[in-house]
Amino acid sequence: MPAIITLTTDFGLRDPYVAEMKAVILGITRDVHIVDITHDVRPHDIAEGALALEAAAPHFPRGTVHVAVVDPGVGTPRRGLVLVWRGAVFVGPDNGLFTPFLGADGWEAFELAAGEFRRPVVSQTFHGRDIFAPAAAHVARGLDLRHLGPTVGDPVRLPWPEVREVEGRVAGAVIHVDRFGNLITSVRAEAVEALGPDVAIDVAGRTLPLVGTYGDLPEDDAGALIGSHRRLEIAVREGRAESLLGATRGAPVLVSRSRGRSLKNG
Amino acid sequence: MPAIITLTTDFGLRDPYVAEMKAVILGITRDVHIVDITHDVRPHDIAEGALALEAAAPHFPRGTVHVAVVDPGVGTPRRGLVLVWRGAVFVGPDNGLFTPFLGADGWEAFELAAGEFRRPVVSQTFHGRDIFAPAAAHVARGLDLRHLGPTVGDPVRLPWPEVREVEGRVAGAVIHVDRFGNLITSVRAEAVEALGPDVAIDVAGRTLPLVGTYGDLPEDDAGALIGSHRRLEIAVREGRAESLLGATRGAPVLVSRSRGRSLKNG
Amino acid sequence: MPAIITLTTDFGLRDPYVAEMKAVILGITRDVHIVDITHDVRPHDIAEGALALEAAAPHFPRGTVHVAVVDPGVGTPRRGLVLVWRGAVFVGPDNGLFTPFLGADGWEAFELAAGEFRRPVVSQTFHGRDIFAPAAAHVARGLDLRHLGPTVGDPVRLPWPEVREVEGRVAGAVIHVDRFGNLITSVRAEAVEALGPDVAIDVAGRTLPLVGTYGDLPEDDAGALIGSHRRLEIAVREGRAESLLGATRGAPVLVSRSRGRSLKNG
Repeated sequence: MPAIITLTTDFGLRDPYVAEMKAVILGITRDVHIVDITHDVRPHDIAEGALALEAAAPHFPRGTVHVAVVDPGVGTPRRGLVLVWRGAVFVGPDNGLFTPFLGADGWEAFELAAGEFRRPVVSQTFHGRDIFAPAAAHVARGLDLRHLGPTVGDPVRLPWPEVREVEGRVAGAVIHVDRFGNLITSVRAEAVEALGPDVAIDVAGRTLPLVGTYGDLPEDDAGALIGSHRRLEIAVREGRAESLLGATRGAPVLVSRSRGRSLKNG
Repeated sequence: MPAIITLTTDFGLRDPYVAEMKAVILGITRDVHIVDITHDVRPHDIAEGALALEAAAPHFPRGTVHVAVVDPGVGTPRRGLVLVWRGAVFVGPDNGLFTPFLGADGWEAFELAAGEFRRPVVSQTFHGRDIFAPAAAHVARGLDLRHLGPTVGDPVRLPWPEVREVEGRVAGAVIHVDRFGNLITSVRAEAVEALGPDVAIDVAGRTLPLVGTYGDLPEDDAGALIGSHRRLEIAVREGRAESLLGATRGAPVLVSRSRGRSLKNG
Repeated sequence: MPAIITLTTDFGLRDPYVAEMKAVILGITRDVHIVDITHDVRPHDIAEGALALEAAAPHFPRGTVHVAVVDPGVGTPRRGLVLVWRGAVFVGPDNGLFTPFLGADGWEAFELAAGEFRRPVVSQTFHGRDIFAPAAAHVARGLDLRHLGPTVGDPVRLPWPEVREVEGRVAGAVIHVDRFGNLITSVRAEAVEALGPDVAIDVAGRTLPLVGTYGDLPEDDAGALIGSHRRLEIAVREGRAESLLGATRGAPVLVSRSRGRSLKNG
């Protein structure tokens, strides 16, 4: 059965960088499906890359190898990393890209130190092609991860957008604006559900109701719902919540039990 | 021989939604080529998605499974659909996306009702990943479509851009502007050819000649030709007809027999 | 082992043109990996397409078939071409797209003349789908190139961005601005290295130092380094050299031995 390798980068699709990574992978194994997660991570925005990985990786079959390259420190002494988490393998720079998978336990990491699984000449500026892609291809072919280098016990972690509970309310923030202008928040479905069925969401000076799906949103107005990544999101029916509310990444979001069913906005 | 599954959505490529659909497909079958038709359909623009499918689908081999998701009604009671037309299979929401293939006869449709070919948990906001992708993967593996659900006799149809004949002339409209600024019209090659070899095209206050290919266009000016989808299109040599003519989607187009060979613009 | 076919075009990804080429390829062979190099070549910019090919092609395994379509002359009598260079095969219009591979010798070219390896009906406007994609698929299946048409001894060449040596200095130009705003130049690594370890780069009224990698760049300022395609490039750490320097494609670049190690900008 062919292996699966995914790619997540900030390289864009206009330049040939992504194709060069695929060229290197196919030079090592052709028994593989290569899937692009995204190449439109904001340049050098490690947290955005980590969020894309967190959203997409759990849907792939066990054994999938995820290569991620958002790598402002390329060529400096920062380490390369291979990480195993719930049967998935992650390959990339040790700069926090893999924070979502670095819980208290349940993961194992190795440094990409072995020269024999790199390209013969390694550039100073493109380790995605010269180190991470070949390592991923060798792993996809079955290489034992311990051959890649020594164990790493302290991979770099980013501060991660989580929520605070404040007097029975849940305080979070907008962490991403998607193509539809939906505001994805740091508040997970479980935290909303714990408040009971009737909640209200304060964001950008508005109080919004929680609905089931896009089609239940009030006509021409915003509302909140549990999105497909099991996070609270703010949306407008066939419109852009980002524009309507004037809110963007970082905007605070507060989820409370609502006092009754007759929600008022304003 | 590997199956072929295509994807047509309004998801864009910046967010991981498309990758999640591919993850689900590859979890069901890896004996498949997954081909992106486009993910840049204008958000919620069902007609634009239908036009992309109409242009691309006829070029794929028999048995190809086309998944299309432009789905503002996701999570509401709108049906999911699988449709067979000339040996191709289409999977997506029953909202008009498949209008080009719903002629008077020659098609057969079924509702995506069976729970066993969905993901175990179906979100309210992403049926592309949770219902349509898995159905397509099972069909690509050979599932008999009748196992997916009951026959549908009345799939939703959009009003479809066609032409009117007016006193020996053919009246249509611009239905799409492509990347090159070419104006693709609702007038099909056959309607133009029926008028004979010498025709003139009125659009945006101009009268344009019909030429054979882009290289035959007048220097720095617009002309019309039969495009690769066998539709009349308006183009400018190495320029943008959209900008030069100030015309966009919906602009009326009139094709007439020209009175002589010495066409004048103006 | 599956073959590899790459695609380089100016078609963009919004319209279904690229998918139609893949449809035709998969109709001829499914034992293939299809890899997109880029579809965002500036419309009709043959030189930009050639640069993308020059950067990406050398990283693919021997036997890879590269289809390139930047083709303002489609439908005119310009020839179609298949070219072999160092075990790679290139297919596309004979308009200069393959200039980087047309050195004094080491290549062999044939005209795409044989009707039997085209689609039965060839449009006047889309030879990428109707001539180049099917030819590439047949070559990927093992077709002897001599069956495609007669030898071509004089393929079209573009003037190619090279450097001049002027009094021990190397004069070149910016040839591409990548997604990160890095300025890629016509000066190759070898020409820089021949000047010795201490060089300075004049561009856009500034004199910049040469560093090893992005992380060695001065804080908030520009510098030069050898990029991953072995060309001199101008970059800003986590910023855009294009914006900071106000330089774009065509800007002159001069590389000189520096007089000492204490470089001053200004």
